[in-house]
Amino acid sequence: MSFKTITAAAIAAVMATGAVADENPAIEQRQGQFKLYSHNIAVLGGMAQGRMDYDAGMAQTAADNLFHVTRHDQSRLWPEGTDSSASMATRAKPEIWENLDDFVAKFVALQNAAEALQAVAGDGLDAMRAGVGPLSGTCQACHESYREEAS
Amino acid sequence: MSFKTITAAAIAAVMATGAVADENPAIEQRQGQFKLYSHNIAVLGGMAQGRMDYDAGMAQTAADNLFHVTRHDQSRLWPEGTDSSASMATRAKPEIWENLDDFVAKFVALQNAAEALQAVAGDGLDAMRAGVGPLSGTCQACHESYREEAS
Repeated sequence: MSFKTITAAAIAAVMATGAVADENPAIEQRQGQFKLYSHNIAVLGGMAQGRMDYDAGMAQTAADNLFHVTRHDQSRLWPEGTDSSASMATRAKPEIWENLDDFVAKFVALQNAAEALQAVAGDGLDAMRAGVGPLSGTCQACHESYREEAS
Repeated sequence: MSFKTITAAAIAAVMATGAVADENPAIEQRQGQFKLYSHNIAVLGGMAQGRMDYDAGMAQTAADNLFHVTRHDQSRLWPEGTDSSASMATRAKPEIWENLDDFVAKFVALQNAAEALQAVAGDGLDAMRAGVGPLSGTCQACHESYREEAS
C-alpha cells in the first residue's frame, strides 16, 4: 500500500469510534480526558482516604499519568455550542463560554496542582496526601462553577 | 470543610462519570484515551491528506497532545476479562491477553512514533507527513491484530 492508502485507512479506522450522530465529537473527546482523570484519581484518592494501601510506585505512576493528561491542550475540546443547553450528552454549563478566562485559569490551576503532585506522589503517604488535597480542590472549584448537577 | 471532606466530595464528583453498570470502568477509561488520539489524528491526518491546510502551530499542538496522551501508562487500563468475548462495550480481542508482550511492543511503537512526530510536526507539511505515516502505521498494526471489526 502507498503511504496515502495506509494513512487514509488508519485514520478512518481511528475515527470510527462510535461518536453519537449529530453530536460534536469534541464532547466525547473531552469526556475521554475526564475518564483518564478518574482512572488516576481513583488510585490517588483511594490511598489518600485509606481505602487502599499506599504504594509509592502506583501513586507515582498515577501522578505521572495525570501530569501528562493535563498537558493536553484544551483549545479544540470546548467549541462554542457544546454546552448543556445544546446537548444532553454534556454537563458543561453555558457559563463556561461566558467566563472563558476564568475557565482557563481553573484549568491552569489543575495543571499546576498535577505538576506539584507528580513531584511528591512517590515520597510517602503524607507527602502524596499533601499533593492530592490541592488537586482535588481544583477539580471541585471548576465543577462547582461549570458543571451541571448529575440528573 | 476539612481536607478529608473536600477530597471525598471531589473524588466522588469526579468518579460520577456515567460508567455503565457492571462494565469494568477501565473499558471506557481506555476508550477515553483513544478518543483523545482521534481528536489529534483528525488534525494531523487531515493536513497530511490535504483535506485541511497545513498550519504549523495546530500541527505542533496536536503532536504535543499525542505525545502526552501516549505517555499514559497502560498497565491498569487493560485488566483481564475486559475483552470482546466478555463485553459488548469493547472491540478489544481476547488475543491481546494471549500476546501481551506483542501488544505492549505495539504500544511502545506508537509511543516512539508520537515522539518522532512531535519533533517534526511544526517543521512544514513534508516534515509532518514523514512523521504521520509511521504513526498511522502503528495504529493500524495494532488494530489489525487486536481490534474486532466494527459491527
